[in-house]
Amino acid sequence: MRLLIKNIGALEGGESAEWLLCDGGLISAMGSGEPPAAERELDARGALVTPGLIDCHTHMAFGGWRQREIPMKIGGAGYLDILAAGGGILDTVRHTRALSESELLERTRGFAREMLAQGVTTVEGKSGYGLDTETELRQLAVMHRLGEETPLETAVTFRGAHAVPPEYAGRADDYVDFLCGELLPAVREQGYAEFCDVFCETGVFDVPQSRRVLERARELGFRLKIHADEIDAIGGAQLAGELGAISAEHLIATDERGMEALAAGGVTAVLLPSTSLYLGKSFARARDMAERGVRVAVATDFNPGSCPSLNIQLCIMLACQRYRLFPREVLAAVTENAAAAIGREGRIGRLAPGMQADIVIWNAPDIDTLCYRFGSNLAKTVIKKGEIVHEAD
Amino acid sequence: MRLLIKNIGALEGGESAEWLLCDGGLISAMGSGEPPAAERELDARGALVTPGLIDCHTHMAFGGWRQREIPMKIGGAGYLDILAAGGGILDTVRHTRALSESELLERTRGFAREMLAQGVTTVEGKSGYGLDTETELRQLAVMHRLGEETPLETAVTFRGAHAVPPEYAGRADDYVDFLCGELLPAVREQGYAEFCDVFCETGVFDVPQSRRVLERARELGFRLKIHADEIDAIGGAQLAGELGAISAEHLIATDERGMEALAAGGVTAVLLPSTSLYLGKSFARARDMAERGVRVAVATDFNPGSCPSLNIQLCIMLACQRYRLFPREVLAAVTENAAAAIGREGRIGRLAPGMQADIVIWNAPDIDTLCYRFGSNLAKTVIKKGEIVHEAD
Repeated sequence: MRLLIKNIGALEGGESAEWLLCDGGLISAMGSGEPPAAERELDARGALVTPGLIDCHTHMAFGGWRQREIPMKIGGAGYLDILAAGGGILDTVRHTRALSESELLERTRGFAREMLAQGVTTVEGKSGYGLDTETELRQLAVMHRLGEETPLETAVTFRGAHAVPPEYAGRADDYVDFLCGELLPAVREQGYAEFCDVFCETGVFDVPQSRRVLERARELGFRLKIHADEIDAIGGAQLAGELGAISAEHLIATDERGMEALAAGGVTAVLLPSTSLYLGKSFARARDMAERGVRVAVATDFNPGSCPSLNIQLCIMLACQRYRLFPREVLAAVTENAAAAIGREGRIGRLAPGMQADIVIWNAPDIDTLCYRFGSNLAKTVIKKGEIVHEAD
Repeated sequence: MRLLIKNIGALEGGESAEWLLCDGGLISAMGSGEPPAAERELDARGALVTPGLIDCHTHMAFGGWRQREIPMKIGGAGYLDILAAGGGILDTVRHTRALSESELLERTRGFAREMLAQGVTTVEGKSGYGLDTETELRQLAVMHRLGEETPLETAVTFRGAHAVPPEYAGRADDYVDFLCGELLPAVREQGYAEFCDVFCETGVFDVPQSRRVLERARELGFRLKIHADEIDAIGGAQLAGELGAISAEHLIATDERGMEALAAGGVTAVLLPSTSLYLGKSFARARDMAERGVRVAVATDFNPGSCPSLNIQLCIMLACQRYRLFPREVLAAVTENAAAAIGREGRIGRLAPGMQADIVIWNAPDIDTLCYRFGSNLAKTVIKKGEIVHEAD
């Protein structure tokens, strides 16, 4: 069925046009003047139309919540106090391990509905709250099934190197052996994960450990991602550049040499402003990165610890106001550049004939408004592969 | 009609109870164990129940939007550049003056619907985008009618002393004469505004000018509010204490002497964290104020310049994470203390027999979750004067 969007006021993320025609899940034509006929017509009434948003960094398949840590933190408890009280990431690991695949999928579906309503048509989701073979594979299966069974397209990332599990406490190298020798091959065998991500940070996995995991992953055919420089610039960005990673994430502490390595290696920087906001950290140097030729994407980081928010529109405001990116750069960061961070830039993230028909019609006249009216959901009509998947009341 | 809320999992903002009965617009009984019969029952299913939220500081009756200033700001334009390009507050004044009462009411109704859906059952709204008799009275009439014609209860504040209008450029004292001699008496005559607020700040109205306006307002029977110490601590908090103002707003730069004056004068501090976030300013010293015995309220500051967000749930997260208030203090800041900021603490802001039945049932098990899951609207059922006024899908 052909779907026509007419009376477009402002089209961003593609060549200017007054109408846009979807056919067979793709954008088949765009133009100005008299629009063609179609079985179904949507009148944009002069509003803004953009590509569907892409949230290219989440940890959405998890069990439990961690709100009970909040009064502890406000009272001055540190990370170790919270761990001692049974909180922190290992709490999420316990809760995630306890869920069946169908229970985990059901929770994740709820998040997917909310994301679609925000204008997100593609989401990346990582494992990393299992830290054992069974649960990691289950998280990956849930992210795969979410993409099969809901309109939300998914990109699946294996991230067993998220933390050292309790079973390997004090033996990080042994866990790396396990990842390289058993878990990565099992994930490859399962066939759902396209990417492998490692948390390269002081106190988690150091550069040599991260390199071991990533080189093994590359050997097995995964594309590489790295959580780098979230707290300290220990060389994660340089490792990303050197290994030709598709993306590096967080990058709050990245220095000039790190930025050079990202630019030279063609690594997409995936920046996570809501995490900075929630934790009261610095904001990544997005403006400097953009000016040094780094491709900058922005995502939510949705997870139960450091960013319990899946609201990408809030990230859009923060990317503008706190990163000092211009509205067009912000839009690219959650569409075209986010597509590049998951290797799908030829198919999604732009509005052009031949691209997938992932489209949002906004309750807004221009992209400046998306960066401005924060806290209100401005998505009006959300279209995935040419089908309407959400309409605001 | 009697409305029963049963199976309350956690009741906050009042004595613990498992059920709550509304009758005649009031809470008629609360208790545990077997609930009484009622014509209508709502099953809270173990969820959190709180008083309806009170947004005690907004400028919601305005014309136009100012999103077009954003690319200018990112590009480095200062306040004066934006004014020279036709932007800034006087742009909002132009757009507000251009709207008829019914046009302004219609816009404001849209905001009211969104606020109710967020769990806000009472809102304060200020004039101050007219700066002439006709438009100021029109803004006040709109805030009054909003309270009469929608379920959202309103508190109305006259704030002619928001800026010096273009007609009085360079003649602030003459404008103060006009306010005291003509506009304040006209507002009194109209009878809608209960409060008078003044922007006491470097470059706006200094302490002597602010004092003149507020003393005249007090003489005419208004209760007093002051925008104080948003940028500089020029003595606004002390003036608030001295004049016995009901509240002082912003207070980002307030020093120890200011805090003492607020505590001694029983002035409620109305803090506006989304404005700090949006402008990239410091956050007010809420924790210090609370510990010095200042009653702290938190509100959105919704306005088209410095905070184009009406999302009070986002303020709740920020009040916890950035102000370091404990979840119970945060809830009090948007209920009981916000009621005190508008002189209604005997009627709204608490759950107790005899109080107005303004209630929210949340998609959350506890108040920690309200401070945690930011970016998602967690309000499930919103009740105003014993009537259901919003239910989430």
